[in-house]
Amino acid sequence: MATERPMQLGMVGLGRMGANLVRRLMRDGHRCVVYDVNPDVVKELEAEGATGATSLEAFVAKLDKPRTAWLMLPAAIVDATLDKLVPLLEPGDAVIDGGNSYYRDDIVRAKRLAGQQIHYLDCGTSGGVWGLERGYCLMIGGETDVVQRLDPIFKTIAPGAGTAEPTPSRTRTGGTAPDGYLHCGPNGAGHFVKMVHNGVEYGMMAAIAEGLSIIKHADVGKATQVVDAETTPLRDPEAYQYDIDVAEVAEVWRRGSVVSSWLVDLTADAYARSPELDEFTGRVSDSGEGRWTVLAAVDEGVPATIITTSLMERFESRRLGEYTDKVLSAMRSQFGGHAEKK
Amino acid sequence: MATERPMQLGMVGLGRMGANLVRRLMRDGHRCVVYDVNPDVVKELEAEGATGATSLEAFVAKLDKPRTAWLMLPAAIVDATLDKLVPLLEPGDAVIDGGNSYYRDDIVRAKRLAGQQIHYLDCGTSGGVWGLERGYCLMIGGETDVVQRLDPIFKTIAPGAGTAEPTPSRTRTGGTAPDGYLHCGPNGAGHFVKMVHNGVEYGMMAAIAEGLSIIKHADVGKATQVVDAETTPLRDPEAYQYDIDVAEVAEVWRRGSVVSSWLVDLTADAYARSPELDEFTGRVSDSGEGRWTVLAAVDEGVPATIITTSLMERFESRRLGEYTDKVLSAMRSQFGGHAEKK
Amino acid sequence: MATERPMQLGMVGLGRMGANLVRRLMRDGHRCVVYDVNPDVVKELEAEGATGATSLEAFVAKLDKPRTAWLMLPAAIVDATLDKLVPLLEPGDAVIDGGNSYYRDDIVRAKRLAGQQIHYLDCGTSGGVWGLERGYCLMIGGETDVVQRLDPIFKTIAPGAGTAEPTPSRTRTGGTAPDGYLHCGPNGAGHFVKMVHNGVEYGMMAAIAEGLSIIKHADVGKATQVVDAETTPLRDPEAYQYDIDVAEVAEVWRRGSVVSSWLVDLTADAYARSPELDEFTGRVSDSGEGRWTVLAAVDEGVPATIITTSLMERFESRRLGEYTDKVLSAMRSQFGGHAEKK
Amino acid sequence: MATERPMQLGMVGLGRMGANLVRRLMRDGHRCVVYDVNPDVVKELEAEGATGATSLEAFVAKLDKPRTAWLMLPAAIVDATLDKLVPLLEPGDAVIDGGNSYYRDDIVRAKRLAGQQIHYLDCGTSGGVWGLERGYCLMIGGETDVVQRLDPIFKTIAPGAGTAEPTPSRTRTGGTAPDGYLHCGPNGAGHFVKMVHNGVEYGMMAAIAEGLSIIKHADVGKATQVVDAETTPLRDPEAYQYDIDVAEVAEVWRRGSVVSSWLVDLTADAYARSPELDEFTGRVSDSGEGRWTVLAAVDEGVPATIITTSLMERFESRRLGEYTDKVLSAMRSQFGGHAEKK
Repeated sequence: MATERPMQLGMVGLGRMGANLVRRLMRDGHRCVVYDVNPDVVKELEAEGATGATSLEAFVAKLDKPRTAWLMLPAAIVDATLDKLVPLLEPGDAVIDGGNSYYRDDIVRAKRLAGQQIHYLDCGTSGGVWGLERGYCLMIGGETDVVQRLDPIFKTIAPGAGTAEPTPSRTRTGGTAPDGYLHCGPNGAGHFVKMVHNGVEYGMMAAIAEGLSIIKHADVGKATQVVDAETTPLRDPEAYQYDIDVAEVAEVWRRGSVVSSWLVDLTADAYARSPELDEFTGRVSDSGEGRWTVLAAVDEGVPATIITTSLMERFESRRLGEYTDKVLSAMRSQFGGHAEKK
Repeated sequence: MATERPMQLGMVGLGRMGANLVRRLMRDGHRCVVYDVNPDVVKELEAEGATGATSLEAFVAKLDKPRTAWLMLPAAIVDATLDKLVPLLEPGDAVIDGGNSYYRDDIVRAKRLAGQQIHYLDCGTSGGVWGLERGYCLMIGGETDVVQRLDPIFKTIAPGAGTAEPTPSRTRTGGTAPDGYLHCGPNGAGHFVKMVHNGVEYGMMAAIAEGLSIIKHADVGKATQVVDAETTPLRDPEAYQYDIDVAEVAEVWRRGSVVSSWLVDLTADAYARSPELDEFTGRVSDSGEGRWTVLAAVDEGVPATIITTSLMERFESRRLGEYTDKVLSAMRSQFGGHAEKK
Repeated sequence: MATERPMQLGMVGLGRMGANLVRRLMRDGHRCVVYDVNPDVVKELEAEGATGATSLEAFVAKLDKPRTAWLMLPAAIVDATLDKLVPLLEPGDAVIDGGNSYYRDDIVRAKRLAGQQIHYLDCGTSGGVWGLERGYCLMIGGETDVVQRLDPIFKTIAPGAGTAEPTPSRTRTGGTAPDGYLHCGPNGAGHFVKMVHNGVEYGMMAAIAEGLSIIKHADVGKATQVVDAETTPLRDPEAYQYDIDVAEVAEVWRRGSVVSSWLVDLTADAYARSPELDEFTGRVSDSGEGRWTVLAAVDEGVPATIITTSLMERFESRRLGEYTDKVLSAMRSQFGGHAEKK
Repeated sequence: MATERPMQLGMVGLGRMGANLVRRLMRDGHRCVVYDVNPDVVKELEAEGATGATSLEAFVAKLDKPRTAWLMLPAAIVDATLDKLVPLLEPGDAVIDGGNSYYRDDIVRAKRLAGQQIHYLDCGTSGGVWGLERGYCLMIGGETDVVQRLDPIFKTIAPGAGTAEPTPSRTRTGGTAPDGYLHCGPNGAGHFVKMVHNGVEYGMMAAIAEGLSIIKHADVGKATQVVDAETTPLRDPEAYQYDIDVAEVAEVWRRGSVVSSWLVDLTADAYARSPELDEFTGRVSDSGEGRWTVLAAVDEGVPATIITTSLMERFESRRLGEYTDKVLSAMRSQFGGHAEKK
């Protein structure tokens, strides 16, 4: 099923996300001009029907006016890329940052580009490696008329209304949220909502992971109890005698349960690949949005203990609390003569 | 589509959950004998095809041997009901507790009933008011042969494999988890998994609610800043100038996003009914499973900070931390002469 | 006992902290020039021996060169005051910000003043309303030679080594930390350490308050248990039958216990004034340092869950989580038909 | 200075705590009969003036009637010891459990011993390895007349009023709290208050340790920033350029600061012994009271997020959250193709 209003879009950055956005757009009838510092990935997408460019100059030259350039880049190199790209653009052109920029940078950039009458949109893009098939949830910030002009692009990228049952009580007509994309507000609003989305994601992930861990350890009553002053004896070992198949728990929660969610789906799939998750060491990265969400909560004075704590748990997973723990051990040694257990 | 192996089941307790379980069973071709202390609800289900009973004695008399009685009762009255029901049963009969009992009570009850050669199953049942259509996720504990004998019952109540896409990497064949029900282990294991499920639910709910709250308050920069020694000034009010439509955010997150989940679906529906959620005061109850999950985490020595904190947040919502806060204010008054802000 | 090296200091801002610093300095033989926008407090300190000034110009004129001006002002008006004060100063003069500025502002200010060869010190000052008698703990940032030049001032303000037993294992000689003041590093380091000090203070306060609250509620087993689906029944009411005198608990913890601390001392005093703490409503302010400490922990990637959570608890105490809680209630209503308890 | 009313006490268990209690009692003029399974420690205390016993029978025989036997034993062996000791006692005798028993065990034991007209007191004892000189803070549960009869014992063990300044606003006369010991209520109340004391201790320790860790890492801006998709770049490295001497920070906080406390004193001493705390690995044990405090908070429905989280942090320090973290890594791998950083 092709889009009613085919458009042309330029994509800068052909990593997994950028390349799949191009594929999804072309499948729906849009035309794409593509550029990446790596010429191999440009060729790969040319082979799939895109118009390739081997320099930003060529890229800009191949775009119809007013141009639309979507950046799908690591946050750290967006500004450097804009420094090169913007001088090549003309008034009326539009740049979309579809990556994971900090929303405050969007505010600054939009103001800067506005000085040259170039439009800037920030577009938080969720969907990960599955978006090509599943569609991407888009959270957009910027000027209303520009967002509306580019509506066919967003509509194609988004999952579409058919990918979930309609919200039963919804009476509001119009609006694009049921299609999976939303103009959230002026510049920065898109990445703000995406940032918080990731904060929520941290919290939901932590809740699921903690629960599965409690189920995994429901056998602690079987272990021989160590008897020493540094170990709390388990008072009711008979209540912890279960060997529960956590992989099957994840699978059963996928249907009918209150916690059913895409994250539980993915967890079940992870267990299907690796029942003991042996290839993971448990060092969990955090990539910015979680931290920024905490900063926003603190600035707003909104208690967000779950999201905050889930970020801190990731820090703990990477042993970043080791110094804190040493201080604790040092205190215990001081007041109680407690030696650390090895 | 009717079940291949119709069975007969007795249901004690015809509240919303019990009544809907009966309806779902009858739709699929099973026969149900129903009892409740309220004769009106018995009549209502008789009108829909069930066999009614107005006393436990009559209820038991109408059940084929070996009997199967499902209790769908508040946890607080399960034991009293068993005290009346069990003397009426015979060796080989089975009782299923489908409510929200503490799993440790299951262990005790199963042992007690085993003394009379009566089987006991604990069955955690998730699905809430939507289960009639959506099916219920079942987490079952008890003897394997009894669980297998009653398989047609569980299969009918559960959502069924068709209600979600298959887990892509799943190669395991057999097993009922993909149908939405799971024999988790010996007695108590079903309610243990359901208990933790609810703990996970608390954490996921809190993550979503906190995130939406941060988005809702993205306009704090618009408020006039109070200047006094008790208020932290917002350093960057220009970064908090957004009026974001949280109802539409919930809707857009339903499709393609990493946080897409039934809870987000329900949140979107709640907003569709009441965009400002005005009818809620924010006093959030907790009904046992969350507390028990925390106790289990503590006993196991498993860090479960998110789940624990989400329980504590519910306590806070009901002002149960007021005394703590008074002590804090008293200290601040002491060391800094700080007066409370009104 | 008078200082060996009397100096002259100018104090801008004669609130409780500023005035008491002046008094403590004069008692020890230092001379003070004082200024405040409120002429009454200037007069009051003149009566106690200070040299008063009714304008910043007069204030500067009365200071010996190189001048030393200590600002004891709300953080929000430091910059405006510097804008007026600095043009009146000359190369070699020094300004000390003794208030609660954000350490990042110190870095900016120090750079700005350095352009005019004026020295800037940031001095975190802890001690509250008790400092006049007890002395103030000082955490200082800035150039080493300036800090050393002003040593007699800091020595007088600080509590002095005699106010606590020597640290038994301490072998390091020299250093001012045992006297209660410390040059922590270059500009900002003083307020950085003071900021974290306050974060620690939040956490310690919360721990004490929570503990006393748990003791206060050790009588919950005496309450009649509500039986409804929204209330978790207390399984062991017989274990919660205590009426413990929390005021006396605070008093007894002052001596010999591991938690003995100035905060416990103050808590005991608060109870002595008001056994039920009735005059407090439990709305606990936060005044910046706690928030900044959280931001630093997030930037550093250091897990600081206790400090962070104690900040969030203060937000909760002021009902800032109400919207979050409404969303939770809305979800519960959706999936379970749960009505809020009134 | 000797006690006015010398008494005789029997001590069972001559570990560090038990032996030092005996020494403190004898110094003040009380007579002690001592027993331990290890005859060497019995001899050691005999040499210091105690009356030794090499069996429980001999121990009981040497006690004046009504006998008073203080147990200073690991919680795990209290019941076994009571099983042997109690049959040797007579109506009117008293047993004190001075160790770290769970308060619910006290309730059971007191009832059991009451059946034989033997009195039971639970006495939470804080003071650690420093109590011999500093005195022990005592939190006592049991019958009022028995507590009063043994008052000279408690008075000697406790620190005494002189060890801290009087609480300024205190007008209440009488009461033993200012001496450092308190009859908290009926059986179990003593260990209940001691249990919560330890919970508070966990929270205070965590707050201090986290704060020092944030200060220790104030140099993160100096590290070369890794640029990859899994690492959040530090936005303001110039704000984290401090090398702060945390040992001196601990020392300076001892005097005049709001966080001044025995725990800060001990921390300063730990740094004096080992500036880098190199001999600690950071695996922090928890020994029961923290867990029980959390259980009490949950039962009471009192939010105690700080205390709870500080317990969870200890679990994290011992890597007990590793499985949780593996699940998180597995999810991230699923939705984003994120590989763990090594």
